[in-house]
Amino acid sequence: MAKLPRTMAVTLVSEWQAGDVRRFQDYLAGEEPLQVRVNGMPLTVTMRTPGTEDLELAAGWLFTEGIVQHRSEVQSIGYATDIKPTEQGNIVDVQLQPDVPLDTEGITRNFAATSGCGICGKGSIDTIRSRRLGRPNPAFRIDPQVLWNLPARLQEAQTVFGRTGGLHAAGLFTPEGELVVLREDIGRHNAVDKVVGWAMMQGSLPLSNYVLLVSGRGGFEIIQKAIVAGIPVLASVSAPSSLAVQLARELGLTLIGFLRGERCVVYSGEERLRPDFVRAQAAT
Amino acid sequence: MAKLPRTMAVTLVSEWQAGDVRRFQDYLAGEEPLQVRVNGMPLTVTMRTPGTEDLELAAGWLFTEGIVQHRSEVQSIGYATDIKPTEQGNIVDVQLQPDVPLDTEGITRNFAATSGCGICGKGSIDTIRSRRLGRPNPAFRIDPQVLWNLPARLQEAQTVFGRTGGLHAAGLFTPEGELVVLREDIGRHNAVDKVVGWAMMQGSLPLSNYVLLVSGRGGFEIIQKAIVAGIPVLASVSAPSSLAVQLARELGLTLIGFLRGERCVVYSGEERLRPDFVRAQAAT
Repeated sequence: MAKLPRTMAVTLVSEWQAGDVRRFQDYLAGEEPLQVRVNGMPLTVTMRTPGTEDLELAAGWLFTEGIVQHRSEVQSIGYATDIKPTEQGNIVDVQLQPDVPLDTEGITRNFAATSGCGICGKGSIDTIRSRRLGRPNPAFRIDPQVLWNLPARLQEAQTVFGRTGGLHAAGLFTPEGELVVLREDIGRHNAVDKVVGWAMMQGSLPLSNYVLLVSGRGGFEIIQKAIVAGIPVLASVSAPSSLAVQLARELGLTLIGFLRGERCVVYSGEERLRPDFVRAQAAT
Repeated sequence: MAKLPRTMAVTLVSEWQAGDVRRFQDYLAGEEPLQVRVNGMPLTVTMRTPGTEDLELAAGWLFTEGIVQHRSEVQSIGYATDIKPTEQGNIVDVQLQPDVPLDTEGITRNFAATSGCGICGKGSIDTIRSRRLGRPNPAFRIDPQVLWNLPARLQEAQTVFGRTGGLHAAGLFTPEGELVVLREDIGRHNAVDKVVGWAMMQGSLPLSNYVLLVSGRGGFEIIQKAIVAGIPVLASVSAPSSLAVQLARELGLTLIGFLRGERCVVYSGEERLRPDFVRAQAAT
């Protein structure tokens, strides 16, 4: 039987604090794509935390998007079985009652009619890998003490945030901790796209010598955007997902989470953190 | 000239604290849909904070999605002008150099090829309104003191959250503050869809006598899902967007933000909060 996607994953990470590096097992929130097919037609793909509630997720999406109005319109709902083992648990099949109209034109206009390919964590990573990106700059190094200053610098620069409290931020920093560009948006992905778009229009891609700090969680799509832009270090004040960590490790991105105070957790690419400060402290 | 969408909006809100209701002008993060057209073809629509960085957002999205590899492939990028006044500033036109291939088949498979209709805040609200939903239960009342207890109850129940720190939550509560169902996900929208899907499969829609508490920001799409499910009160520990507030007011949802400690900000539908506690305090 195929291994089903899981709600949580456990992985070995390292915690860097002033003068100390400690390794421990950490729990990560699971993240995998879920495809919903209605009457055999793929209607949407969403990155979600897999588990026992996948059928509820599909049902709720159908209802809130107005595709069904009542449960009696659903003839059956369950995991697809006519699929590859790696996609097991990631495709939900919904069969509507024969008399329930499905506005296929409106749907293909409004939702992504994604093909059946890549509906598993591995497939998602393969799609990125197929773009033959180089590994982000292996020579890039960052001092953890510089890292620890970045969240405060980002927040200082977030004048709009101070007023509305409702915006996500992405900030690009030099290895010396200087803020090069800050972009905000109500959407986390958009803040990152704005930074990358700024760089593209400046002709300064790839961003091989910068750290990107994001205010939200480091999910799969944020990691993907950072890697495509050639960024070697992505830091966040929050937790990454299982798929984010897997992608960062496979493609050589340094991924840092829980960057708060004089502490951070390193999920991938630890070699880019300068160990000097540890040795200096250890020698005293 | 048409009024352009704005980065921020100002609106009158009320702050409820123990024994006190204060009205003040608050800043909201702007939220409007942005459509990106490439060679005249609509490729994506994203909800974003409008402003001077719309072109960067479009450019960054094209790059991170692999549609362009270098800025030299872009012949021109700018706001569309052949559109309705209400859509001004919400559609970006990108013209690629003639020799740059555009994989239309792959694109229509992977992205929503949304029509030109509804690409403004008003259009987005019209789409919801066109579903002829009733106003959420006008008779529903909630005691602010019950509200203030909800975030702690949600967090207590989030056992997975305690372990990974990476999951969003949506919790459905009775007017007495009892948790009926809690769902978590790496995506905020998914947590809400899971709650609604749970209710649909139970046959308990519409959710006319419940408060929904979400851990993240109250954006347009979360409000939409709550209204479609018939929920009268949506509360969040964070800030809503401009479009979220507009939608909540037009369709009669009580929208509460910054629910922290013994305090909250009411953006819409204040009549559902029991004023008794204010009078009681004022009488002493």
